[in-house]
Parts: sequence; C-alpha cells; structure tokens
Amino acid sequence: MQNQFKFIILIIIVAFNGLSQNIDFEKDSIMMRKMYDIALSKGKAYEDLRSLCKDVGSRLSGSAQAEMAVVWGKEKLESYNFDTVYLQDIMVPHWERGSQETGWFRVGDEKIQKVNLIALGGSIATNGLLHGELIMFETRDDLLKASREEVEGKIVFISQPMDEKMISTFNAYGGCYPIRGLGAVDAAKLGAKALVIRSLSLAEHDHPHTGSLRYEEGVNKIPAAALSTNDATLLYNKIKNSDEKVTFSLELNCKTHPDKPSHNVVAELRGTKYPNKVITIGGHLDSWDLGEGAHDDGAGIVHTMEALRILKELNYRPNYTLRVVFFMNEENGNMGGKTYAQLVHEKGEEHVAAIESDRGGFTPRGFSLDGMDEQLVLLESFSRLFEPYEVHKFVKGYGGVDIGPLKEFYPSAALIGFVPDSQRYFDFHHNANDVFENVNKRELELGAATISALLYLLDKYLYLI
Amino acid sequence: MQNQFKFIILIIIVAFNGLSQNIDFEKDSIMMRKMYDIALSKGKAYEDLRSLCKDVGSRLSGSAQAEMAVVWGKEKLESYNFDTVYLQDIMVPHWERGSQETGWFRVGDEKIQKVNLIALGGSIATNGLLHGELIMFETRDDLLKASREEVEGKIVFISQPMDEKMISTFNAYGGCYPIRGLGAVDAAKLGAKALVIRSLSLAEHDHPHTGSLRYEEGVNKIPAAALSTNDATLLYNKIKNSDEKVTFSLELNCKTHPDKPSHNVVAELRGTKYPNKVITIGGHLDSWDLGEGAHDDGAGIVHTMEALRILKELNYRPNYTLRVVFFMNEENGNMGGKTYAQLVHEKGEEHVAAIESDRGGFTPRGFSLDGMDEQLVLLESFSRLFEPYEVHKFVKGYGGVDIGPLKEFYPSAALIGFVPDSQRYFDFHHNANDVFENVNKRELELGAATISALLYLLDKYLYLI
Repeated sequence: MQNQFKFIILIIIVAFNGLSQNIDFEKDSIMMRKMYDIALSKGKAYEDLRSLCKDVGSRLSGSAQAEMAVVWGKEKLESYNFDTVYLQDIMVPHWERGSQETGWFRVGDEKIQKVNLIALGGSIATNGLLHGELIMFETRDDLLKASREEVEGKIVFISQPMDEKMISTFNAYGGCYPIRGLGAVDAAKLGAKALVIRSLSLAEHDHPHTGSLRYEEGVNKIPAAALSTNDATLLYNKIKNSDEKVTFSLELNCKTHPDKPSHNVVAELRGTKYPNKVITIGGHLDSWDLGEGAHDDGAGIVHTMEALRILKELNYRPNYTLRVVFFMNEENGNMGGKTYAQLVHEKGEEHVAAIESDRGGFTPRGFSLDGMDEQLVLLESFSRLFEPYEVHKFVKGYGGVDIGPLKEFYPSAALIGFVPDSQRYFDFHHNANDVFENVNKRELELGAATISALLYLLDKYLYLI
Repeated sequence: MQNQFKFIILIIIVAFNGLSQNIDFEKDSIMMRKMYDIALSKGKAYEDLRSLCKDVGSRLSGSAQAEMAVVWGKEKLESYNFDTVYLQDIMVPHWERGSQETGWFRVGDEKIQKVNLIALGGSIATNGLLHGELIMFETRDDLLKASREEVEGKIVFISQPMDEKMISTFNAYGGCYPIRGLGAVDAAKLGAKALVIRSLSLAEHDHPHTGSLRYEEGVNKIPAAALSTNDATLLYNKIKNSDEKVTFSLELNCKTHPDKPSHNVVAELRGTKYPNKVITIGGHLDSWDLGEGAHDDGAGIVHTMEALRILKELNYRPNYTLRVVFFMNEENGNMGGKTYAQLVHEKGEEHVAAIESDRGGFTPRGFSLDGMDEQLVLLESFSRLFEPYEVHKFVKGYGGVDIGPLKEFYPSAALIGFVPDSQRYFDFHHNANDVFENVNKRELELGAATISALLYLLDKYLYLI
C-alpha cells in the first residue's frame, strides 16, 4: 500500500474518531432533506433573483440603481420577518461609463475594421478620439520585458487569452487577472498612451467583458479598454499575418466622480446560546453596469437570503447569531467588506465563521476553506451528509472578497467560499450576457439549499473544534 | 468508529491492495492530462456537434434526415482515419408527425383556450377533430384506480408533474416515464377516447415534450398528446377552481408507415493484444423530430467519436479492439442496440465492456455501472486519477438503452453509463429547445475527455479483474 494512501486513511480515521461520533447523522439527514425540499419545491430564490434582475437591473456602486438595490434588499429582507434588518453606512467610489465606447483598427492600407470594446472599470477618458500605432504583446510577461523605445507613444494590445486547459475556470481567470488589473500601469511605465486587452473570458463572442483596473501613484494614468474575444482573435490574426503597421483608434468618455455614501444591507436571526458570536453569510449587492448582475452576484444575494429564510421557515433556533449581509462595492473597491469587518470589530462582536457566495448560480460542487486544518476536518466530517446532493468538494482555498477583511480581526474564523460548477461562469462574467435568463432555476435553488445546510451544520457543530 | 465506516475503510484497503498497486498513477496522470488538453484546446467535439445539429438537424428513425445522419456519421468517422469504418444494416420503425397538432379546452361557458400540444411518438391520428369531455387525474395511480363509468368516452388528462425535489432529474423522469409510455393503454382499458399528459419536464415553458408511447395487443389504440408544462398548469388550475364541465378538442394527423432499412455506423481501432475482444462506446444517432437532438443525443455521438479520436491522436495502441458505434433508433424501438448485440454475438466476438453517453453534454460527474462488484472496485481505483477533473461518482446503476441488449449475450461485460450533471437535461429533452446553442463548449469537451480517459483506463487495466 502506498504511503500517501496510508496517510489519508490515518487522517480519515483520526478525523472521524474525533468528530463524526458527535454528528447526529440521522437527525441531520432528515433536516437537510427538508431544507432541500423547501428550496426545490417552494423556494423563493428564483423569483427573488428575477425581481433583482428585472425590477432593479445592473447596479454599479455610486449609481442610482445601486441605491435602488439597497432599498430593494432592505424591503425584501423585512418581508421575511428576520429578527433584525438594518443598513450599514459606507462610502463607495463612483465611476460612470460614458456614451462613447468606440474603436477600430487599420492594418497597413487596408480598410478600417470596427471592434466591440468597452472601458475597463475606473479607466480615465480619452478626451476625444485617441489614435496611435498599435504594438501587440502575446502575454503580460512579454510586455514587462519590453523596452521603452518599443512602446513609447504607442497603444499597447495584450492578446493573451485565458488558459482553456485549466479545469477550474477561476484558476484560468486568476492567471489573467493581472493583465486587466495591472496592465495599464505596466504599459504606462513604458510610455504607452493607451491599453487594450482581450476580454477575460473563455467564450468566443462579441460581448466585451469589463472589470476594474488599478492606477498607481506616480505613474501616468492611461485609458484602458477590453476587446470582445472575437475581435481580439481577429486583431491577433491580422497582426500575425501581416508585416504592415497597425494603427488603432478609440474614444472613451467614462468619468470618475467623488465618492458617495452607500450601504451594506444586513439581516439576522439572533443566537440563543451565543448571541454575540456571529456566523456571517453573504454576497455582493453591487454589480457591473452591463447585463443584470444575475450570476455576479445576484445569485449570491438570493442564495444567502434564501439560506437564512429556509432556517426561519423550519423554525430553527440558532446557537450563534446568523447574519446575512448584502455587501456593497465588491466590484471596484470592496468598501462594503472592509467597512463591515471594521464595524463588527469596533462593536466587540466575535466572528466564528463566514460563508460567501460569489461564483455564480451553478450546480453546487462544495466549499473552499480559508482557515485551519481542524476546520477542514470538520467540513469533511459533513461530507457523508452532503453526498446525496452531489456536493463533494471540501478543500482549502479562497474564501471570498467580501468576507476576506474579517481575517485581520478574526484570524481564527473559518472563511468559506461556496464552490459551484465553474464551467459557464466566464461566459457571463462582467458582460451583457449576465442576465436572469442565463440562470437555471434548479441549479440556483440547489446552491441556496447547500449554503443553508452548511450554515445549519456550522451552527450546530462549530463548538466541536 | 461506526461499523459502517469501518466497513468502508476495509473495502478501500482491500480494493487498493488488490488493484491500485498495479495502476501506474504517474504515467496515467500524464496521459490523462494530455487527453483533457487535446479535448479542451484543440478538440473537435464542439464543431462536430455544430455540424450534426446545423448541417443535418433533427433525425427521427425512418426519416430522410436520419439517412443523412448515417452518411454524415460515416464520412465524419472516415475523416479521422480509424482502422475500419462500416455500416450495420438494421430495420427501423417509421412514424411521422403530421401538419396538424392543434388543441384547446373550454371550461363551462367560458371562451375557448388554445394550448400548445404535440403528439407522443407512435400515436395514431385523430382522423379529423376529436372532441370530448375531459376528466383529470392528478397521478397515473389515480387513473389506474378509476372505474370504467367515470372514464368511458372521455378524454383523459394526467396532470402529474415530475418530482422537482429529486436531486437526480433522471430519477424524477423515471418516476413519470410510465405516464407517457403506458398512459394510452391505461386510459384505453377504461374506454377513454384520447389521452393528454403534462410534458415530462422540470422547466416551465411553452414547448411540449414528445417521446414514445406503447400500445398493447388487444387494447384499443387511442391518440395521445403532451401539453406544454405552462398549459398543463393552466388547465390544472382551471379545473381545480371550477365545478363546470371541461371539454377538450384536438386534432393530430401523425402516421405510422411500414418499417424501413437503416444503419448503425461503426468505427474501430483494432486491438493489438486481443483483437477479438471488444470495448464498445457509443451514443445514438437518431433523435426526436423537434429541435436538433443536440443534447439527446448529438452530445453522445460527438463525445464517443472524440474519445476514440483523442486516443488516435496520441498514437495509443489499444490492447482490446475499441469500437465507437452510432446506434440508430434508440428513441422509438432500440432496433440499433438490439441488432448490434445480435450481430456481434453471431460473429463470435467477445464483449468485455461498453460505455454509453446518452444523458446530455453537461459537466461530467462520473459513471454508473451495470455490472459486478469487482468492476466497481476497478472503477473506484481510478477515482484518484479523475479527481483533478472533478469526476467523483462511481456507482452501481444503469448503463444505457443502446448497450443494454449486450447483457443477454455477455452477462459479465461491464456496461457503463456516462453521468454528467443532470440539472438542465429535462429543460431540453425531446423538445424544440434541444439545439446546439444550448450546449456549452467546455462542458461538452470535458465529457469527451472523461469518456476517453475511462476508455484508456479500461483498455489498460481490465485484465486485472
């Protein structure tokens, strides 16, 4: 028998000896079946998502729609009669897309070719039409190795696609994220006058994907835009098959306004044993301004609201205070998550765990833990309970952007990311296709039930570790 | 430690002692990574499916399109340079939908309400407009308990929906399948003059779902149709909220023609060690006449063709003869599957295993084995290899309709069904929405790679059991 396998067996035995004896498999199985039944046969998640997508729509921080979403969230939570519903004051950045997002290229003397592009979130405007020679880099690393002579005064195009060979699309996204987040700074340091990138997506279509960029103190700010994957491929092929000079033209009239007041929206079921110890669950209420923010992160909003509502419908009386938070401003600043962590710390609350849903409304696969070994063992001891629901992944990994700031004040809290199937997520992420119609009812409902079940199990068994 | 758990540990240890020592984890990991890389970055499955859906389209047995699909399949397989490509002659039933599929109901004196309905596959025509009093049964069991007095001369409506609380939608389908398959006989035995049912689907929409029915020797044949789920709900609610008599009118001019010759399409990589021992993989080439048969079962066709093509691209020299079969007539007769089993038996071939893909082109979950315990242990010993690909289900269960007839002649063959995520399948199954656009490229490609990997592992390690 291989040593690695012996070790695994040992771990399982130790874990089960320590924990699984204390788990009431029969009672919890029955409770979980009830939770899934409610979600699948008389759940509210799907209609709540329809309402958020259709009655409110997209909701970028600082926009009127974001404030509408705050009112929507508060009233929706109040309608479910939780113990408390309230707002937390925060300040958020306010960037607005303009009416102009136009671009085209020309290879040598060929006729011009229009492309679908959009400004990256936070980009400065071009102040009229910006025109220049284009220089292509096939990867961000190639750009970082380039000389100022090559780049100065030009428009930089990074053609790098997401790696389609990765099984988790989030890993593929993570590998390309710096292109969008840091590319404008990289290019500006070499004297470029604008940046265009290939949209971070695995789908081939005409809808460019937005997302935030960063500028750096002391580095010239340059405008930055994303091409649709189809147009990025077209431009890439044109350049590869030609020795001619390529020029690019674009106009963006987006604008950054002063910061604005906004809110996190909060609801609670009060703990009966440990009212001052909190388990937070949540997603983010803001979205990008394209589509309807259905998967990102309307799904997380209705997942976590429904998770708490199911426990309430079953008259479950929690040990800990269970709190759902609709975080504002995850997309371009994370002021909701940062302020939340600060506020609860100042109030002297203890945070024992948090669950975030921000990976879309797809079929549940499991959970990703930013936490300690014994917390992972506890999660794994739930795996038999989750088996009938095909939830099979209990791994160390990332928790989530919104709950991440809790770590500074509560280093021993279990920060848990809900992990649904990732294959379709980057077809919709940050683009015009992220609409209600692209969310499947059952997949969404299974997510809500799965989060509700974990919340119940954590509330019941966290004391074991 | 619980006894059940001790037993599981024991089983794992025994299995691993017996088998896993013989598995070359490192070499197989590398091989599988190459297989997934090919499928995801230079695969043919998605474009092949586009071609089958758009260049051929729907392809019900006996139709001109089905014969076109045979030509398509043969030429496509020939283009991949397998060792042999050939046709098998079979006879298939030939039923054709007519130009008339019209229906409406009236409650008491209210105005008439048109409904979306379609004939069930194999239904007789109404011979003009058929009109009668409607009697509703909420389940098939209620119909079976009814008396002839209640039913005679009426049109029976079974309103029973699929059970949305079941996690596997195939289980929910299985629970309702007899309504469609046997309902016309049940109703006719009580003297009904027609049957209408709620479409077997978990989605609420306006597209009725077809599928085959059976008639019984000696029982009067009556016409049978399915209402869209939306219209079935409407009719149900109308009846529940009214004491008035409900009448129903429908016209169907579908027709059954004499049986026709058709073909299975076959391609092989010849075994180097055991050329006369065969592992078959396949899906079915025919489809219902609505939509494009994209998930059902275009996905299975391109999954299994791609699985063999990947091995060929990697210059893998198989031990057994690996054979892909495009079965004809799964939907309404299974003459392809039945004839195949007969033919290979007559030729004196030995069949050691078969894999069928007929559950759609969704993200892989695992495999369902119709076979023996030691075959399940072998499958489970592959689980570590599949873990990076999130393939986690290795269970006893159903193999598939097409490969099922092999069991009679080869009772010890491992019949394996490919199991993708099931949540969306019955949104598309047997209806107009089963089109190419509803198949996700990555999900399809992962399925092909997963089947290819299992085929490789079976070919390499079947000798162990």
